Amino acid sequence: MKKLIALFQLLLLLVSPVALHADEGMWTFDNPPLKQWKERYNFEPTKEWLDRLRLASPKLPGASGVFVSPNGLIATNQHVAASIVAKLSTKDRDLTKDGFYAKTQADEIKAQDAEISVLVSYENVTDRVERAAGTGANVADSGTKRSAEIATIEKECGRSTGLKCLVVSLYSGGEYWLYRNKVYSDVRLVMVTEEQAAFFGGDYDNFTYPRYDLDFAFLRVYEDGKPAKTPNYLRWSVTGPKDGELVVVSGYPGSTARLLTVAQLKYQRDVGNPLQKHVWETRYKALEQYAELGPEQARQAGPGMRSFANSLKRLTGQQDGLVNPRNFAQKEAEEKDLRDQLAKKPDLDRQFAPAWESLAKAYDGLPRMSSRLAFSNVAASRLATIAQQLVTYHIELAKPNEKRYAEYRDARLDSFRTGLLSSAPIYPAMEESTLLYWMKEALRVLGPNDPFIRAALGDAEPEEVVKRAVRETKLGDPTVRKALLEGSADAIGRSTDPMVTLARRIEPVVRELREWNEKNVSDVEAAAGSKIARARFAVYGRSMPPDANSNLRISYGAVKGYDEDTTLVPFKTTFFGLFDRNLSFDNKYPFDLPQRILDRRDKIDLSTPLNFVYTADTIGGNSGSPVVNRNGEVVGLNFDSNNQKLSNRYWYIDEKEGSRAVGVHSAGILEALRKIYEAEGLVKELTEF
Amino acid sequence: MKKLIALFQLLLLLVSPVALHADEGMWTFDNPPLKQWKERYNFEPTKEWLDRLRLASPKLPGASGVFVSPNGLIATNQHVAASIVAKLSTKDRDLTKDGFYAKTQADEIKAQDAEISVLVSYENVTDRVERAAGTGANVADSGTKRSAEIATIEKECGRSTGLKCLVVSLYSGGEYWLYRNKVYSDVRLVMVTEEQAAFFGGDYDNFTYPRYDLDFAFLRVYEDGKPAKTPNYLRWSVTGPKDGELVVVSGYPGSTARLLTVAQLKYQRDVGNPLQKHVWETRYKALEQYAELGPEQARQAGPGMRSFANSLKRLTGQQDGLVNPRNFAQKEAEEKDLRDQLAKKPDLDRQFAPAWESLAKAYDGLPRMSSRLAFSNVAASRLATIAQQLVTYHIELAKPNEKRYAEYRDARLDSFRTGLLSSAPIYPAMEESTLLYWMKEALRVLGPNDPFIRAALGDAEPEEVVKRAVRETKLGDPTVRKALLEGSADAIGRSTDPMVTLARRIEPVVRELREWNEKNVSDVEAAAGSKIARARFAVYGRSMPPDANSNLRISYGAVKGYDEDTTLVPFKTTFFGLFDRNLSFDNKYPFDLPQRILDRRDKIDLSTPLNFVYTADTIGGNSGSPVVNRNGEVVGLNFDSNNQKLSNRYWYIDEKEGSRAVGVHSAGILEALRKIYEAEGLVKELTEF
Repeated sequence: MKKLIALFQLLLLLVSPVALHADEGMWTFDNPPLKQWKERYNFEPTKEWLDRLRLASPKLPGASGVFVSPNGLIATNQHVAASIVAKLSTKDRDLTKDGFYAKTQADEIKAQDAEISVLVSYENVTDRVERAAGTGANVADSGTKRSAEIATIEKECGRSTGLKCLVVSLYSGGEYWLYRNKVYSDVRLVMVTEEQAAFFGGDYDNFTYPRYDLDFAFLRVYEDGKPAKTPNYLRWSVTGPKDGELVVVSGYPGSTARLLTVAQLKYQRDVGNPLQKHVWETRYKALEQYAELGPEQARQAGPGMRSFANSLKRLTGQQDGLVNPRNFAQKEAEEKDLRDQLAKKPDLDRQFAPAWESLAKAYDGLPRMSSRLAFSNVAASRLATIAQQLVTYHIELAKPNEKRYAEYRDARLDSFRTGLLSSAPIYPAMEESTLLYWMKEALRVLGPNDPFIRAALGDAEPEEVVKRAVRETKLGDPTVRKALLEGSADAIGRSTDPMVTLARRIEPVVRELREWNEKNVSDVEAAAGSKIARARFAVYGRSMPPDANSNLRISYGAVKGYDEDTTLVPFKTTFFGLFDRNLSFDNKYPFDLPQRILDRRDKIDLSTPLNFVYTADTIGGNSGSPVVNRNGEVVGLNFDSNNQKLSNRYWYIDEKEGSRAVGVHSAGILEALRKIYEAEGLVKELTEF
Repeated sequence: MKKLIALFQLLLLLVSPVALHADEGMWTFDNPPLKQWKERYNFEPTKEWLDRLRLASPKLPGASGVFVSPNGLIATNQHVAASIVAKLSTKDRDLTKDGFYAKTQADEIKAQDAEISVLVSYENVTDRVERAAGTGANVADSGTKRSAEIATIEKECGRSTGLKCLVVSLYSGGEYWLYRNKVYSDVRLVMVTEEQAAFFGGDYDNFTYPRYDLDFAFLRVYEDGKPAKTPNYLRWSVTGPKDGELVVVSGYPGSTARLLTVAQLKYQRDVGNPLQKHVWETRYKALEQYAELGPEQARQAGPGMRSFANSLKRLTGQQDGLVNPRNFAQKEAEEKDLRDQLAKKPDLDRQFAPAWESLAKAYDGLPRMSSRLAFSNVAASRLATIAQQLVTYHIELAKPNEKRYAEYRDARLDSFRTGLLSSAPIYPAMEESTLLYWMKEALRVLGPNDPFIRAALGDAEPEEVVKRAVRETKLGDPTVRKALLEGSADAIGRSTDPMVTLARRIEPVVRELREWNEKNVSDVEAAAGSKIARARFAVYGRSMPPDANSNLRISYGAVKGYDEDTTLVPFKTTFFGLFDRNLSFDNKYPFDLPQRILDRRDKIDLSTPLNFVYTADTIGGNSGSPVVNRNGEVVGLNFDSNNQKLSNRYWYIDEKEGSRAVGVHSAGILEALRKIYEAEGLVKELTEF
């Protein structure tokens, strides 16, 4: 009988290769998995429950967080706050290393350039966007018209609401949604743990479980110089999650690629990922070389190195999954099924089938341009990036709003200015070192006759150009940047600042590459993606969530340990384990602990849970996401995934294979705040409401 | 340059497929790896150092131990002492569950039937054995002559020395050694931990690391009613091993099969291992079914279940290694190399090459007999085994010493009697349950017309035969056994005890099968094995240690953590980790701890090391082996291996693949003795000398 059932299940799987797995999906709030929640967890949240969760889930730079008091208090990860913290640190006040706690509100430190936003409301604008695109004479013209219509929608909305309005594409262009966001730009640091407590185990324990990391921080948003009122906060759970309990995770997963076609995946596997790896390795090594000069240099380079190491480890896992022929065969089977189903409906087939061919053709031409696209930039230097942004800004601002690059459209200019004028420290020696390392590698990869290299270096050596540009530029001073930003296009065009002249020289090359890519790849992807999405809707209905793209999503799953090799991995870890791992490695880096924690060991209730795992479908960007129980209480902060989940960019990995998200336990955070950080004020604020 | 070196190393590997890996080998004391020690660890032990280690390494039933005081005190694992402890336990005094500590010498409890021996001296007798075998007219006759000569050597030695003299075959018969052993038969229990402390994590954490087990016990050997004098004891290290330190492990590894031919390995892979798995699973399930009846039944069945679970987990790992085509191809390449080298020396080739063909032929005929050989026995019942031994004993004793089955020869009769007459408890209900389960499975596998089934059951149902035999037998009483042992062959032949009559019925079938196997397989193996061993000596020299076969060996390696997935596994664990794992699973079985340990948590210095890993080449039977530093001090007790090492029966697994032996740390044992077991007397004895 059991065999019959298993056979039946296998048949089901074969005829319906796109069936959702348990706990799969990063869902939009307009289409939450209500059916799965009810069936699997007997959970039926009200509209109010969902609205409150959405409004309590602010977007942080590159990641997520959660409002945890009515007074603008946000909980997130240390590694999410790390860029803010690093910018507030100096050689003599190293908050990254030493952590921080503001005993009073007056002690909270204002971040130089952070922006935090909340998704206030949303609206489906697919029809309007596609109607405009439909008037285009060809793919490129349609692309221009689509883009212009989006700019118009954003501008109208911004004008009428005062909110940051962004049109978001879902299902590779199958849907367009207008997202209206409230923005907070006065962000202050309330509390952060020492990096070595948050990142205990370093790169080794990253994507590893069991794990023992105090990866948390608290920020507060202000309005008019006072803590912002955030009535839609979530309560903090004192006890945290139980084994087997349902949890919901909301946040901003960065990017998945589960709906890509086989042609797109092949490109990723054979060209895109290896090239990306090369780029990130170059960036990492550039920082590493600088960090080796001394402890202060290591401090400056630290956050960047950590970020690239993290990205590289994830990319390696993703690529490992992609090169596995069994995984790839499954993707081919899925695509074949969709196209076979389509073929049975000739009307649809005629309309949609050409999309695959056009995508395949676009990707055929991409490899020969890929290295140029990847290496023709100066992102390794913040000063060079600023120069380039100033030059491009003036070119773009001269155009009507809807014809500009998306990031220079009116709706995004406030954020752009905040970033450009940030008073965050810039370290010229590091800039020089990393930009030089990058330019040498670009020269090696592209060759001396490449247009970007010609423009950047001419006949000079990289040393000569980079040294002069970094040493003589005045762009380190925010008032200089402000003058150039607010000055005329002419002023930037006449500037003799050597970093600006470098930026002016490379601008036409970078622009040409970008336009080649938009015309030959992005526009084709938008047109074909939209068709394939509609084909998928026609065949399977709207049962799959769209790929993640840094917008607000909701995931769910159970708190649950798993099998690994021949043993069991527990659903939670405790402070006992932190000290075991610390001492097992004789307190050696990266398993050393800050002295404050070693000193307070006997004060801590070591049986308190520290980290825990759950089956929710998450990915990079979900860092700092609240892990919420069915009462809407925060039981933890998402901060990592385990090894088994690393390749989930391209497909959901079933929980039976041991894939898990990893969170910091809410009770562990309270215990640490009380016993290690003596942050009674913060504990009171978290627990009194 | 690096590439050239790598290529060169690859070539080296290709031309010399039998090259030893780092830290490989379970070496005999007559041929220790002095060269490797000097080259790799700059370690040059004296003869006295080696002699002392040998004399301090007693053989325990199925495993190993170490003398740790001049007064006969032996340290070993709880799971090694478990069979002794189980026999000393009753429903009302469950030492397995509760542990034990004898506060005074008078409290030490005498084991019913344990035998402990020490290898006093040894001598190479290959020439004498082979000379005798050389007079044989054919393979079978040679086998008989070889066997008779061995019996004669053992008897002569026993008579002249009073020691237990055994001739041991090494290199599948390439060498024969006379081992002279001093035997202690008065063994007393001094201290043992609770099984749940020793086997914390149960079968899940078996063959797992990081691990947190207090797997230790202390026994004492007595002579003439007083603690035996054991001047060759080893000192106990108070601090234990350091990261990277050399350690040496001496003990009695049970069995490896690294020198088997491809034909032999194929048989293991395709027939032998699956059949062995079937047998052990049957034995395990029989006990499990009984254990489910209640806690007292579970107590009775516990040690057996634990032993079969352990064997099954190891067998599964071994078989996983063997079915891996890459591993198998390596074995084929090794054999091909040996035969290719031989082929270059026609003299040797003529002499030795036929050995492979004769072995292959012998194994061709084995599969059709395998199920009969595996299932035609009554080992599932101790009472039935006793009956069978009594019947066989009288048949064998009627023959001259050198013609008997090896286990009934004079040199081994003392041990045989100790076992047979043991007053260890026998549980009739368990006997009935497990024997019945076994007979039903044997009936299912062999069919009703099989000779063993016909002899055992005739036309009766298994229930009828088994119930009557177990319920009516008097063999539970050791005095009854003694009378039958010391009585005449006629007395056993006339006994109407239904267990004895069952044994008499199956005896001819079992004997016929055994003789078939000896003639068609074992004798061929001995003859061919000896030839292949000599061929190997001729081609490669005596650079490889022989396969393990439960005789004294010495292994070595470094204390060393390893990489696993993308993280690091530490070289040691601490008591912190024990409580982390306990609480991570909410103190649930099998991660629960005895109340005594939970109660004393705050007394323990939790930073004390508990378990640790090292690269030494060990296998089942090395349990309880001392792990010794270069000063000859005990730094730990070997008790497990990790997953990565599971298939090392068939080949050495390099430490770079993460294979490790696992030991209990000497400092952890001292801390537990002091703080948990309050065994100050024992601590004093361990540390005062």
